Amino acid sequence: MSQYSIPPVSDTLRASIQHKIDQKTKPLQALGMLEALALRIGLIQQTLTPALNNPHMLVFAGDHGIVAEGVSAYPQEVTWQMVMNFIGGGAAINVFCRQHGIQLNVVDAGVNYDFPAGLNGLLYAKVGKGTANFATGAAMTEQQAQACLEQGGAVVKDIHARGCNVVGFGEMGIGNTSAASALMHALTGIPVEQCVGRGTGLSDQALNHKVAVLQRSVQHHGIPGTPLQTLATYGGFEIAQIAGGMLEAASRGMVILVDGFIATAAFLVARAFAPAINDYAVFCHRSNERGHAQLLKHLGADPLIDLNLRLGEGTGVAVAYPIIQSAVTFLNQMASFESAGVSTSL
Amino acid sequence: MSQYSIPPVSDTLRASIQHKIDQKTKPLQALGMLEALALRIGLIQQTLTPALNNPHMLVFAGDHGIVAEGVSAYPQEVTWQMVMNFIGGGAAINVFCRQHGIQLNVVDAGVNYDFPAGLNGLLYAKVGKGTANFATGAAMTEQQAQACLEQGGAVVKDIHARGCNVVGFGEMGIGNTSAASALMHALTGIPVEQCVGRGTGLSDQALNHKVAVLQRSVQHHGIPGTPLQTLATYGGFEIAQIAGGMLEAASRGMVILVDGFIATAAFLVARAFAPAINDYAVFCHRSNERGHAQLLKHLGADPLIDLNLRLGEGTGVAVAYPIIQSAVTFLNQMASFESAGVSTSL
Repeated sequence: MSQYSIPPVSDTLRASIQHKIDQKTKPLQALGMLEALALRIGLIQQTLTPALNNPHMLVFAGDHGIVAEGVSAYPQEVTWQMVMNFIGGGAAINVFCRQHGIQLNVVDAGVNYDFPAGLNGLLYAKVGKGTANFATGAAMTEQQAQACLEQGGAVVKDIHARGCNVVGFGEMGIGNTSAASALMHALTGIPVEQCVGRGTGLSDQALNHKVAVLQRSVQHHGIPGTPLQTLATYGGFEIAQIAGGMLEAASRGMVILVDGFIATAAFLVARAFAPAINDYAVFCHRSNERGHAQLLKHLGADPLIDLNLRLGEGTGVAVAYPIIQSAVTFLNQMASFESAGVSTSL
Repeated sequence: MSQYSIPPVSDTLRASIQHKIDQKTKPLQALGMLEALALRIGLIQQTLTPALNNPHMLVFAGDHGIVAEGVSAYPQEVTWQMVMNFIGGGAAINVFCRQHGIQLNVVDAGVNYDFPAGLNGLLYAKVGKGTANFATGAAMTEQQAQACLEQGGAVVKDIHARGCNVVGFGEMGIGNTSAASALMHALTGIPVEQCVGRGTGLSDQALNHKVAVLQRSVQHHGIPGTPLQTLATYGGFEIAQIAGGMLEAASRGMVILVDGFIATAAFLVARAFAPAINDYAVFCHRSNERGHAQLLKHLGADPLIDLNLRLGEGTGVAVAYPIIQSAVTFLNQMASFESAGVSTSL
């Protein structure tokens, strides 16, 4: 994976950006996490005047063979139906992207459905019609996992060429909390039962069944030896394309906006390939899906919002996006003590 | 205070609004706090299609005699200097209000400074040039407290007449965390030391001094007998005008956006006059100021964001405002399962 030689963000400007923040007309640190965020984005962009240009949300969709085990509250057809809802503009992610001027693209990474050609807003990047059931075998081949990484990267390369420097990653895929839970377990060592949640809304009984299916699956496979093998064993096509997209974004110095449980699991995969990707990531929200809080803790991430969202699609990113804009905007627009003629502390 | 006979919000539409939320293309409750917020705003406005019209931020400014006791990290002149910064457009609240299209008005409720006449964006509503030092006497007379309530109400009445149905309340006033702490203690019974924080950034030693000053002050006064007496004893002119503004807003069925520690203390005062004001309030953020978390808990409030802000000015409201818009927008714009042709749960 030598193409993912992502350098850590340079610390050269840290002191100058911090100085600029500290001269603003407010008590030291009074803007809390907005200050840390302004510093991070300034460092990523290597400037004291960062800007968020042509923001994009990429929603990758894929189906999952593991649904044959009865792990989801919704039928598989909901994946393609929701893709059509995205195309039609009626889903939550459409509403929030419109609200904030975020360009939305939906990517068919591997939905078990033949979409008609020429749908406006859909990128056709299908690697397969759903993964295989990882309870009994690998979800995909390593070749498919590699193809997904490259395909996700190509999508990001394309939006970067159109002037985008900040990109959110969302997903749609019935069954994908199961894939994300298995990836979390494999890449962090956290016991499976702590990685599994209710997904779209399982009952207690169905949750117990899901935990049992996943425990059986990870016992069957053991711990895969490489990040690519891990991804192939448990991943979804959408998760793998997200990981590839995130790696490409970091390699181009873009700001990566990480959504909920599944997107964070994809980030975990990307981080296994290139640890310095951490420097480029903004964790946007803490999902209500069990496992996400612990996964964020594992990553040392303190997300921006915690509104008990558990919808996926990138909705946590989109709802949090104005907060990221606020961080950039205060850094660029607020007066300093000197320019405003305000006295400093006693 | 019979003019503040605020009725509880009617529950008539609760079931219909909840039904509309539950038919949206998402798992039940998957939008978490956005759903609760959409329901609350629908109930306040008595409609299934709520709208946020001509949003305003009112920043009330006042000075505090208690600063003579050395309880603040900044000199009193910062109050008027920051008002001039608001007028000049360079403060954090200006930046965030511009970002979100919120109309900002600054109110001189009682700053210890003679502003030149005719400043654009400043409302001249001075009740006095700073309060008296409540360590040794009442901060203001009951007549002044009453005048503040009416003045704050008049400001809100005016913006309501211009089509505003959602209003945020912010403040500026060196020393006003001390006033807010004393009000919190007097109205909740929580021990003073738990109500006192670092304000604009006190050292450990200065914090201990502030606690001692406030303990001495509340021992001097005892617990005042009525809400108006409490307000007169400890309040600031800006806090009292905010309380009056909130009461007027609720009486007109407006959505009240509550900011941080000082604005929440003002809300506590308003609630002492008219408990049903709770139904009209959205608590926007949890401040990093010690005391705010416990005050919110006392009110049963679960705020939208928790970004370690402790700046005041209404910045917590302004940064959180797009989340409130998101709640209204999903309720109005998202497709239903039926309209989008998406299957429901198994």
